[in-house]
Amino acid sequence: VPVSRTTRCMCIKISNQPVNTRSLEKLEVIPASQSCPRVEIIATMKKNGEKTCLNPDSKVINNILKAMRKKRSKRSSRTQREA
Amino acid sequence: VPVSRTTRCMCIKISNQPVNTRSLEKLEVIPASQSCPRVEIIATMKKNGEKTCLNPDSKVINNILKAMRKKRSKRSSRTQREA
Repeated sequence: VPVSRTTRCMCIKISNQPVNTRSLEKLEVIPASQSCPRVEIIATMKKNGEKTCLNPDSKVINNILKAMRKKRSKRSSRTQREA
Repeated sequence: VPVSRTTRCMCIKISNQPVNTRSLEKLEVIPASQSCPRVEIIATMKKNGEKTCLNPDSKVINNILKAMRKKRSKRSSRTQREA
């Protein structure tokens, strides 16, 4: 392991603001690694592809996942009705 | 809204197997959208960049996030000791 390895985290600023799941394109979770010592959570927005880093320790992530699941079950029941 | 819009989901096969967080490069969460009616969770592996789709309703995701957080706090305490 080289001593002078450079740290390359993707996130500089981390937001604690809640994210609107409807405007969310995708959410990336990157585990801690040699290139970055901390977990990084990157939210990509639909509008302009803007990326926001979220606090992995906040409940935001769980809320997003919960909202996504809820949306999914609503959608699938609608699809079943249509079929 | 066009009637004959094509569905383009990323996932064909969804795995319910637990994922080793140490071999995980990143995790992508893609909300339901017009192009795919279901939430998709894609795990990319470090080894060969292999992608596995995970069940968004399983607890796997929460476990991964939990493991990532744990790893992070261990790492940061180690870093503090080194500094």
